[in-house]
Amino acid sequence: MSDQQKTMAVVGAGVIGLSWARLARDHGWRVGITDPREDLDAVVEATFGADDPDVFASHTLAEVVAEADLVQENGPERLAVKHDLFGQFLESAPEHAVLATSSSSIGATLIADGLEASDRIVVGHPFNPPELMPLVEVVPGAHTSDSTLRTALELYRALGRAPIVIRREVPGFVANRLQVALTREALYLVAEGVVSVPDLDFALQNSLGLRWAATGLFEGNALGGGPEGARHLYKGLGAEVGKITPGTPPSDPQIIEQLLDAIDTAYGTGDENYHRLLTRRNERTRAILAALHQLDA
Amino acid sequence: MSDQQKTMAVVGAGVIGLSWARLARDHGWRVGITDPREDLDAVVEATFGADDPDVFASHTLAEVVAEADLVQENGPERLAVKHDLFGQFLESAPEHAVLATSSSSIGATLIADGLEASDRIVVGHPFNPPELMPLVEVVPGAHTSDSTLRTALELYRALGRAPIVIRREVPGFVANRLQVALTREALYLVAEGVVSVPDLDFALQNSLGLRWAATGLFEGNALGGGPEGARHLYKGLGAEVGKITPGTPPSDPQIIEQLLDAIDTAYGTGDENYHRLLTRRNERTRAILAALHQLDA
Repeated sequence: MSDQQKTMAVVGAGVIGLSWARLARDHGWRVGITDPREDLDAVVEATFGADDPDVFASHTLAEVVAEADLVQENGPERLAVKHDLFGQFLESAPEHAVLATSSSSIGATLIADGLEASDRIVVGHPFNPPELMPLVEVVPGAHTSDSTLRTALELYRALGRAPIVIRREVPGFVANRLQVALTREALYLVAEGVVSVPDLDFALQNSLGLRWAATGLFEGNALGGGPEGARHLYKGLGAEVGKITPGTPPSDPQIIEQLLDAIDTAYGTGDENYHRLLTRRNERTRAILAALHQLDA
Repeated sequence: MSDQQKTMAVVGAGVIGLSWARLARDHGWRVGITDPREDLDAVVEATFGADDPDVFASHTLAEVVAEADLVQENGPERLAVKHDLFGQFLESAPEHAVLATSSSSIGATLIADGLEASDRIVVGHPFNPPELMPLVEVVPGAHTSDSTLRTALELYRALGRAPIVIRREVPGFVANRLQVALTREALYLVAEGVVSVPDLDFALQNSLGLRWAATGLFEGNALGGGPEGARHLYKGLGAEVGKITPGTPPSDPQIIEQLLDAIDTAYGTGDENYHRLLTRRNERTRAILAALHQLDA
């Protein structure tokens, strides 16, 4: 990859798209932004100020993707929309550009189906918000070339992200599947009255969240087994873990309503409250990332 | 609770017991340690040096628990053993002492069954290692009094821990149940070839671990829904999360062997390697905790 300034074309100026745009600017990239929304210029100006020479916006998609090294699509999660957008990318983007979707649920195989040069299309699914969360799940489809995959990984790394390759297009990829598995058990435990909403959060932050931010799951297993490694842990755990059968989360709408009430009570709602939670999340996440980066340096 | 120096009686000088002991010393407590192991004095000296006036060790259990405000039991996970130990605690510990077990699987109801003054017995299950991980799951049994529960929470808070109350004695309590739910899905994803062992760890560290160390799960839901709160998120998620059915982890011993080989390959085994992983875990965990404490201050 050359050292020249790169350009990201951000297609879709919603929460995710604008976060990608800020990430790219923070890494010195040029950023083009397109979206049919009427207030596009105002939104871009509110995000980057009026006179950033490295940011440009246009309602004309072709103008924006024409200069891209990476097209990052953040449109609605509907296949027909994405199919149409990627058809336009193939017409207007430079030949070397990687064409990526932020989609969490529509794979590259489906999007590329019937399109020419479908080998340039790949999923680059961020973890929200992309400017803060390092993970990008890169999911090649049946037609994605090795070269597209390799370039996508390089581009995301150049943006300071932590991309991994997902080898099969399973629903939810990896991070959301893991999240769903834990969420189901959490909903079960609260619905069964084992623990309250705020206590479950407090427990998660002070145990598993901390552990999994510091070490991975399998690395933790290797450590938990002592010098013999994970094998020793799994031998000992077999009997105990076997006793734990994950529960079934509630499906009764009334119980789900009660749960949502409990979350509202614990964390509040409304604009002001939302911004308080957002600030707290951002500050804490940045503090953890900074501490870990300092340690690695 | 008075401001007088407290005393913890640590029963069982294994990895967990010694970690509790270090935690208590770091918080200015006196610590008594008992264990039938022949090398008890050597182990205690290796941990605290030869002349810490606030640490004492004895093979005679009664001597150690006689001075305790908190007896923290870390014996083998066998009911008969724990039943016998708690019988001895009731004979020798001061009347005001809380009698707690670190057990991850044997509840206070079972341990207290048939013992007098069974209202003083409670589970105080740490997250390994207790000196580093804030969570303590406090699980009252059928006989545990409110006063024992309240005092246990106060004592753990005085030790800088983050105790929560678990309201029902379910296998695995809360943290281990959540861990098992996520681990099952992780084993499934690796066994199915969706992701490699090190990539799954890398993804977890750079997404969910970070998120759940910074905010809780339900707090994240409240945030994810925007100003309307979790209700808005769950409405939108219903359809998508519904598509994700957690997988069944492998049971074929050959596939489990391959998985363990992959963990060994990723993280190594042996004494030297173990100490490298341990140091890394401790440094990273301390760095995150320090960053968050600084932010809160």
